This record gives sequence, structure tokens and C-alpha cells, in this order.
Amino acid sequence: MLKYLEIADKMEAWIIEKDLSQGEKLPKLAELMELYGVSKSTIVKALERLENRGLIYQVQGSGVFVRRPKRADYVNLIDNNGFTADLPTHKMASKVLTLRKIKPPKKVQAVFGSEQTEVYEIRRLRYIDADVLCLEESYFRTDIIMYLNEQIAQGSIFNYVRELGIAIGFSDKYLTVKKLDQKTADLLGVKTGDPALTINEIYYLTSGEPFDYSTTTYHYENSKFFIQSNA
Amino acid sequence: MLKYLEIADKMEAWIIEKDLSQGEKLPKLAELMELYGVSKSTIVKALERLENRGLIYQVQGSGVFVRRPKRADYVNLIDNNGFTADLPTHKMASKVLTLRKIKPPKKVQAVFGSEQTEVYEIRRLRYIDADVLCLEESYFRTDIIMYLNEQIAQGSIFNYVRELGIAIGFSDKYLTVKKLDQKTADLLGVKTGDPALTINEIYYLTSGEPFDYSTTTYHYENSKFFIQSNA
Repeated sequence: MLKYLEIADKMEAWIIEKDLSQGEKLPKLAELMELYGVSKSTIVKALERLENRGLIYQVQGSGVFVRRPKRADYVNLIDNNGFTADLPTHKMASKVLTLRKIKPPKKVQAVFGSEQTEVYEIRRLRYIDADVLCLEESYFRTDIIMYLNEQIAQGSIFNYVRELGIAIGFSDKYLTVKKLDQKTADLLGVKTGDPALTINEIYYLTSGEPFDYSTTTYHYENSKFFIQSNA
Repeated sequence: MLKYLEIADKMEAWIIEKDLSQGEKLPKLAELMELYGVSKSTIVKALERLENRGLIYQVQGSGVFVRRPKRADYVNLIDNNGFTADLPTHKMASKVLTLRKIKPPKKVQAVFGSEQTEVYEIRRLRYIDADVLCLEESYFRTDIIMYLNEQIAQGSIFNYVRELGIAIGFSDKYLTVKKLDQKTADLLGVKTGDPALTINEIYYLTSGEPFDYSTTTYHYENSKFFIQSNA
């Protein structure tokens, strides 16, 4: 991991541990350099990283201040760290409905390219504590994620991917709201015609190659989302 | 405007004008320096800005590549530029339902602080071409936005705010999905109980002070959203 990313993670952990709230000022640059034993440029890059992730804001000539959502239990829509990181006070679990290798459906092949002849298809119900959070349907390229089993899919697939040394880069997310069909409503435990947010996501490696195409449908009463935007 | 932000805007306009697509490579650093007549550090900061906004990705040792959503008509959830910038091929319009100065409601005072004794309350129906896009209810601090009228509210309030020289910084966005009550459904032209995405937003100045509290409820058939995440 690059040094400034490591420092950014440490700073984030420190903000959470100290339970700093919105508007609290961070130590000055010189103090941070001493605290973490790194150069000015590393601290500057770590702060930029935290600013990009919406965790701090910098006011010219004044200092660096904390941004923290005041509302608990919201899923972060910008973060690519997964639910487990977003909802630390909750118990997350997954029930695997489908796990198999198949020829990619057309919508998936349109993203992965026609040379992609095989993908893992995984359908999971994801739970927050005892409640259904969402139904997730994912397709992974088998030339990048060569092996998956039910035990891995019951936990965090992204943690597993990272442990394989695969560098997850960025993602495109498309959001729509709809009325549920009977099949999905039954799985989520709501009524046919009830509302749902559907997020279609394409995840890319740092190289720019797409490796995961997923569609997640959320239980409207058990899910809330936030975005800390700085653009 | 800071030089690197100006260059970032120019590069973005250039990507759109040239109609570059996902994965296309930008010119090398040296060429960009010459093209825009600025220093290496300005180009590097401009590219970082574009990367943070999800418009490019940088691959170490390989170059800088374009990120572009392949789907039209989606509203960008990270951008704070407003609908007019997101949906360039559409005609946006607003119908002002309410525009008045009031004592802030409790939920608004909780964000602006108890010393805030007056706010502008604005309720607007916003249209995309001939269709209702959303119902927006906003509260602006009158000590920051000292004057507003119906004509301004029919257009882009954010453009007006920027023209006043007020620097918009960042925002917190909270998303929930619900079934519509009769009053809101009637305004949006859908049925009671139909689904809707509601986004509650708090906008801050670059100084970190909140100045706009708004709640927007979207017509579920006329709205789609995207996020280009890089975190």
C-alpha cells in the first residue's frame, strides 16, 4: 500500500477513535508530520485523499476540519469498502442463493467485452442484524477472480478479492427507483408493488478493467444511504 | 477562480467537445502543459480534481484515461453543479410554489444553529422538458443569501449564488425511499403510495458553514441517477 494511503487510513481511524465531530479542527501540518513521522508531501496527499472521500474539509488560511455524518445506520454510497465498513455497529450476514459459472448474460457481456466467455454468477440475500437489507446479483470475471466458493460468498467478497492482491479502483453506480415484482418482493419479505431502490454497479480494477457487474435491490424500510460530496 | 480549477474545467469541456469515450487516453503531461500554457504542478492538480470528480482515472506508469457514463439522462449525484449542467440536452424549468421568509422549522434550525432566526423557504416543482422531475423544498440562510425573488427561483438558484461571489463548498446527502403521501403524489402527478426517492441535502460554503437545507422528492419514472465513485 502506498505510504500516503496508509497514513490516510490511520488518520481516519484516529478521527473515529477520538469520536471527533463535524467542524472539529485537526492538528497543524507540522504536528501531523511529527505524529506520523512522514514528510510534508505525504501528509498533504493523505489529507487530499481524506478530502476526496468527504471525510475532512480544508479552509485556506484557516486549517483542516472534520466532516462526519450525524446520522447513524446510513450506507455510504461513495465508499467502495462495502457494508461491513459502513455499518460497524451491526452484524452483517449473507445467504447465498446462487453460485455458479455461466456464460455471461448480454447486459454483462456488453460491459466485460465479447471475449469474456465465462463469469461467476452470485445471488445473495444480505442481512443487517436480523433484517433483510438487499438482494444482490453479481457477475465476476473468472479470469480475474479465478476461484470462489459458498463460504467466501457468505462473507465479504471484496475483502477476499483484496487479500488475493487484486487492486480495486473505481466504480460506476446507476440508481433507479421502481415497484417490486412478486419474485423479488417475496425474497425481500415485502409486498408486490412496494418501492425499492436498485443500484446497478460496475467495479473496475485500478488498471481500468471492469471485473464486477452487480445489481442490488434494497429493502426500502431497512436501508438508508448517504453521500459526502466535495465536487 | 484558482488556476488549476480553471484548467480542470477546460479539460472537462475538451473531453465533452471531443466526445471521448471510456478508456480513451489523454495527452501526456508535457503535451498538456504546452496545450494549456501552465506548469506541471497546475496540470497535476487539475488532473487530481478531475479524478476526484470521477471524470478520469490514472494508471501508474501507463497514463491518464477518460471515464464517461455510457447512459444518458442520469442525474449526477456527486456533482454540485445542479440539473442544468447534468442534463444539457434537456430543457429544465421550475414552477415556484412558495417563496417567503420564515422562522426556521426545528429540523432546519438543528443544522443552521439556534442563532439563525430567519430563512428563505422555497418550494418548487422542477420540470425536465414537459415532465415533472421533482418537488424541492429548500431553506436558505438570509444572512448569506440576502435577497431572492420568484424570477431568480424560476432559474438556477445556485448559479445566482455563485454570481453573488459566494463560494459553495461541499454537501451531505441522505437518501431514503418511501411510499408517497397524497399531497406530494398529487403535486408530482403520480398515485398515492407510489414509490419515490427523497434526498435530504445540506450544502456548505467553502468555510464549512451550512447555508442551504433542502429536501427533494423525485418522480420515480422520470428520474435516474449515477455516481462515478473513486474512493
